[in-house]
Amino acid sequence: MNLKKVVNEIRNFEGILRKIAIKDVVETFDFNDEDYEFDIIVDFGDDAAVIGIDGDNAILLAADGIWGKLLEADPWWAGYCSVLVNCKDIAAMGGKCVGMTNIISIKDKDICREVLKGVKDGVKKFGVPMVGGHTHPDAMCNVLDVSITGIAKKDCILRSDNAKIGDKIIFAYDLVGQIYKSFPLNWDTTTMKSKKLVRAQMDALVQIAENKLANSCKDISNPGAIGTLGMLLEVSRKGGVVDITKIPKPEEIDLIHWLKVYPGSGYVLTAKEENFKEIKDIFEDVEMTAEICGEVIAEKKLYITDGENKEVVFDFEKEFICGC
Amino acid sequence: MNLKKVVNEIRNFEGILRKIAIKDVVETFDFNDEDYEFDIIVDFGDDAAVIGIDGDNAILLAADGIWGKLLEADPWWAGYCSVLVNCKDIAAMGGKCVGMTNIISIKDKDICREVLKGVKDGVKKFGVPMVGGHTHPDAMCNVLDVSITGIAKKDCILRSDNAKIGDKIIFAYDLVGQIYKSFPLNWDTTTMKSKKLVRAQMDALVQIAENKLANSCKDISNPGAIGTLGMLLEVSRKGGVVDITKIPKPEEIDLIHWLKVYPGSGYVLTAKEENFKEIKDIFEDVEMTAEICGEVIAEKKLYITDGENKEVVFDFEKEFICGC
Repeated sequence: MNLKKVVNEIRNFEGILRKIAIKDVVETFDFNDEDYEFDIIVDFGDDAAVIGIDGDNAILLAADGIWGKLLEADPWWAGYCSVLVNCKDIAAMGGKCVGMTNIISIKDKDICREVLKGVKDGVKKFGVPMVGGHTHPDAMCNVLDVSITGIAKKDCILRSDNAKIGDKIIFAYDLVGQIYKSFPLNWDTTTMKSKKLVRAQMDALVQIAENKLANSCKDISNPGAIGTLGMLLEVSRKGGVVDITKIPKPEEIDLIHWLKVYPGSGYVLTAKEENFKEIKDIFEDVEMTAEICGEVIAEKKLYITDGENKEVVFDFEKEFICGC
Repeated sequence: MNLKKVVNEIRNFEGILRKIAIKDVVETFDFNDEDYEFDIIVDFGDDAAVIGIDGDNAILLAADGIWGKLLEADPWWAGYCSVLVNCKDIAAMGGKCVGMTNIISIKDKDICREVLKGVKDGVKKFGVPMVGGHTHPDAMCNVLDVSITGIAKKDCILRSDNAKIGDKIIFAYDLVGQIYKSFPLNWDTTTMKSKKLVRAQMDALVQIAENKLANSCKDISNPGAIGTLGMLLEVSRKGGVVDITKIPKPEEIDLIHWLKVYPGSGYVLTAKEENFKEIKDIFEDVEMTAEICGEVIAEKKLYITDGENKEVVFDFEKEFICGC
């Protein structure tokens, strides 16, 4: 295997490079203002923000905009994915989804109609209501932004920034699916599955959270497997070593391609080794495959290996992915 | 007074005409799917959606996008207003704001920087944290969408659709302010006020809600005073008569202009007459002026009067504003 080539492909992957824009936004907001009525537990840098409300509960907030080119090329899928990506963000925190709002800017009515149909189908599949929003009927561009609110017990949140040295790095995927026709980087595992299974796959993360089985978790999204792991390690201020040949993968998919894919149901977690079996069983119960692929280390670099050679993908002492 | 002219100005006001786009979106989503884990109490058609969580509490969700032309003409104000409008949406439900997320699409970095500064200033003023979101660094248009989550006791929600026949129609405004320089339709009452007062003005609605003093409420927004009242009556399936000369108004502002204005702090409520004094006192304590201006009637028409003549503005048997 040409590991240097893999490193190069990952480092130049647009799905990762786009994350750098987060830094400017994050630096604008600080949370030293003690005026806030509620307790901010997690802000930028995780799949969702977490705010404590009453004694036990916390509210989770996340939002996602759909890439313009996706929206125009396949508006139905954009609408459907706007639901999927937000639900995954809440699930990745170990939370339950409460409801969503959307803001649609309409330049082309036909595109808008297809987008809404996709959103509706996503709502039916994931069982999370779209309850409100805002419409711009006269926009210059077609834009779809969706936000989601979730809920979780304060002491059962799966954060991105809590990876511990010595944790095993676990990748979990639903491997049964297909490359989505219009977007080769999307691994569709939900359109053909029952809503019962799709929702059970989200509940799996709630089980992992409530049983305190993992130290950190992130849903695999636009940056792909290694990019997502990189963001998790970056905010945890740790490093890691990953054997990419151990990452669960459908046989027919090329490895480099797989590392860039946005899966319909896929997560990276870190956990004590003793918890792995239980995590694996929870995922298997919902038809997902989980494997240990590496370990969290103190040195702030992310290495990939193929079992023989080892290369640095990210050196967090010198660079950042999102800068959170 | 030329009432027919007033009617004409209101009916052709862009702030109202744009609301018609809501209908297509709303018709897409139905809530007969009993799969939802949580109880949808209010969905589209109100200032915020309401979803019941545990025994006592409900989560409020709202979202707002800032008009493209506002964003480009005065990005700081767009950012600041993105916070203001969302906070008002939660306040108008009698709720407390928990947190916000935003999605920024960046075409021009300079505009983005000013927008973020405005958002930051809004956050400092209103005391509601911006805790997460999403960034599109390579968009075709500059777009700012913000969503907010709030919380309230389930039995203390101020809805838009609960106006009762015989209720008095009450308008409440902070009359101390100024027309915003770049946007003559914005009545700025917050940039020059202390955060203590601004936040107290939002809490006033919580007090009104928790003391069950009003049957319905809506924050006065883009559709202006009569357009907002129209939407409230439309979803309540009622009508109303309003003496527009009684609507609290700064002396120096022309009436027709005032009816179109988006005020920094302004609400329309309906309530039993016996509750008016208490409502008025609550608003006066936070330096706002509230007056009875009309009454809710069974006939599904909204009339305006100047004390002598009477004209129909909206006939809900034949037309709709947002169709919810």
